[in-house]
Amino acid sequence: MIKRELFFESEIDAAVKEEAYLALLEEKESGRVGYYDLPESEMLKRIEAFMDEYDFETRGIKNVVVIGIGGSSLGTRAVDELLAHTPERNGRNLVFMENVDPVEVQKNLEQIDFEESFFIAISKSGSTIETTSHLKLVIDHFDAPLESEKFRNHFAFVTDAGSPLDKLGEEISVPVFHIPENVGGRFSVLSAVGLLPLTLLGYDTRALLAGAKMLKDSFFDRQEDMLVEKAYYYASHADTFPINVLFAYGTPLRAFNAWYVQLWGESLGKVDASGNHVGMTPVGLIGSIDQHSFLQLLIEGPRDKTVTMIKVADFEVPVAIPDISLPHLEGTDYVNGVQFNTLLSAQCDATMESIKQQGIAVDRIEIGKLDTYNVGYMLFYYELLTSLCGHFLGIDTYNQPGVELGKRILKEKFVNQ
Amino acid sequence: MIKRELFFESEIDAAVKEEAYLALLEEKESGRVGYYDLPESEMLKRIEAFMDEYDFETRGIKNVVVIGIGGSSLGTRAVDELLAHTPERNGRNLVFMENVDPVEVQKNLEQIDFEESFFIAISKSGSTIETTSHLKLVIDHFDAPLESEKFRNHFAFVTDAGSPLDKLGEEISVPVFHIPENVGGRFSVLSAVGLLPLTLLGYDTRALLAGAKMLKDSFFDRQEDMLVEKAYYYASHADTFPINVLFAYGTPLRAFNAWYVQLWGESLGKVDASGNHVGMTPVGLIGSIDQHSFLQLLIEGPRDKTVTMIKVADFEVPVAIPDISLPHLEGTDYVNGVQFNTLLSAQCDATMESIKQQGIAVDRIEIGKLDTYNVGYMLFYYELLTSLCGHFLGIDTYNQPGVELGKRILKEKFVNQ
Repeated sequence: MIKRELFFESEIDAAVKEEAYLALLEEKESGRVGYYDLPESEMLKRIEAFMDEYDFETRGIKNVVVIGIGGSSLGTRAVDELLAHTPERNGRNLVFMENVDPVEVQKNLEQIDFEESFFIAISKSGSTIETTSHLKLVIDHFDAPLESEKFRNHFAFVTDAGSPLDKLGEEISVPVFHIPENVGGRFSVLSAVGLLPLTLLGYDTRALLAGAKMLKDSFFDRQEDMLVEKAYYYASHADTFPINVLFAYGTPLRAFNAWYVQLWGESLGKVDASGNHVGMTPVGLIGSIDQHSFLQLLIEGPRDKTVTMIKVADFEVPVAIPDISLPHLEGTDYVNGVQFNTLLSAQCDATMESIKQQGIAVDRIEIGKLDTYNVGYMLFYYELLTSLCGHFLGIDTYNQPGVELGKRILKEKFVNQ
Repeated sequence: MIKRELFFESEIDAAVKEEAYLALLEEKESGRVGYYDLPESEMLKRIEAFMDEYDFETRGIKNVVVIGIGGSSLGTRAVDELLAHTPERNGRNLVFMENVDPVEVQKNLEQIDFEESFFIAISKSGSTIETTSHLKLVIDHFDAPLESEKFRNHFAFVTDAGSPLDKLGEEISVPVFHIPENVGGRFSVLSAVGLLPLTLLGYDTRALLAGAKMLKDSFFDRQEDMLVEKAYYYASHADTFPINVLFAYGTPLRAFNAWYVQLWGESLGKVDASGNHVGMTPVGLIGSIDQHSFLQLLIEGPRDKTVTMIKVADFEVPVAIPDISLPHLEGTDYVNGVQFNTLLSAQCDATMESIKQQGIAVDRIEIGKLDTYNVGYMLFYYELLTSLCGHFLGIDTYNQPGVELGKRILKEKFVNQ
């Protein structure tokens, strides 16, 4: 169960709301935007068949190594950190070959036992420089040439059909799972990008899709007025409140925040048709930690932020603050005997209350418990919210032209040397 | 060596600059602000004497457990993540008992072997609810009552003189290290808060202080005009550029970003004397990862941000991209044979170039290599920059009145139940 409450008024008229529903419907029906179809895609069947055939158990695969960055890593990391403590998760390690700083690269090499690892190289374009560099490193370091059995038995690729990586996979008979062309990297967590590694980690990815589908159906049945209202409020106040804070309570939500930051920032920071720089800046916070860091700025700083509180009602990990009174610290005894979960929840509510009292636009999402179904729902919630904001801002939510210049300059640095 | 370059013009006149030097000098000389004195404090001698006496080696201490949150954990984490791969670091594990979500709490309990652990409970006020809750949990879970030898042999406290935790330590003969009263939590990394755990992890904390002292002396010798100019630019443009992005290249800089976010947000988000909400919002990014996440927003989104690039010239971890050409991926061969370090540095420069071309105010800090000296310098750099910005904004940089309301509401939730 996920409970959502808005504590601000969004004055959107019926026609504008209707238009928003129709706009997203058009994105979906025209096939221009593909993420809407992911909850019902056939990919999971393909993955399940592959897993039966490959037989990971017998082969002794203990590490799932995702070679990917950005949209190719953030979603999987988000889901895994949310659910790693649940019984669904099997004992395999999840390792990311992601950043190209030598410290991380070296640490990964030391940590990975090739024979016990299954590598998934993920790149939508099929030529992401970080990913191909890691791929070459694995081939070289573990002495697993492309044409070898050794390579073929330990690799899968996830990429767009027709990409360089796809062609390579085809050529050397490595299993390739395609990302639909109309699904952008940051919207791809429910494609093979997330489904393949997450299924390998034991997660009930059917439930992940079912949770997403639940919200999808509700939205296209026009049952999600509150979502539309929230997006409208954010977009129509983008000049006054250019920063959208996600204040999520509990360390397992940290990678979810990072996923949100990419989704939001890369989708909504755009030059619009009139040449204006528009967009909103995402900030992810973790409670209670960031009560000791960012909260002061929220409460007393500029009134340029909206805040969404995310609270997990029950982490299903019972551990209580012992009923011990320490000399001189009797002032802290008011939480004695209380579950840590209860303390964290109360901190979330108290912080929200203190933010609300400042007149700041706040809403709260309460996740009953962390399971694949609810996580799927949350992923789709933020994807829909992003699409709606993009619609109201009048931009192309799904491209990212701004990152090309840096890539070009990078290449020139090496080619012209 | 740390090289700094500003790529924007800060039009500050000589008198305003002089005033800023004098303002910080007054903070220091009056004893109102204590962090300026930390590079020269005697605390490290006390810690070294304690370590000699305690003999951690013989006692078989393999884990350093920091019980603390916010200013009590972020600095230590920042320094350790920056330097964990260097030869200075000994083999002890660093564990934080920080957040109160049950998942993290439970994981910590499972991970910690009491007999092999040394616990440092850190709280400036001496009654932080997260910290005291963890303290009670350790006492109960490991059956180590306060009065026992077992407790005394495995604990130290770091807190203000006269705080409840200080009194408790005194009473049960646990070693207590004091935080100077005039040093705020977020400015306390160079006090016992950071020095005790970091020295226990093998770091050359003398060099950490020496690096800080180097910049301190340079500043009070009026050699740091560029720092003053940068702060002036930020503060005088706080309305147009309310967001200050730190784009740090390399995963080891992630916790440094989090330390910066607290320092900046909590210091500069304030109600000023005229009742205005002022402040600037810190955002920490990691390259190259966030090129695939936030960069689009920087390049095409609203012009409301300044950007500081941080680059490590030499991570001193040699690992190269193999000189392998993969069929269909020949387009990526331009980095073949290149060190990962070189690729990362080039990405930093290329990204900066692409941001500069947008007319965005950028500066760059190049850290020669990651060692304790340079890290001490960087910590002090950001502390000085924060003090200068606070001066120019006309606020009290060192208090945090905004967080009290939430704490009061929290307590009421339990007391009135």
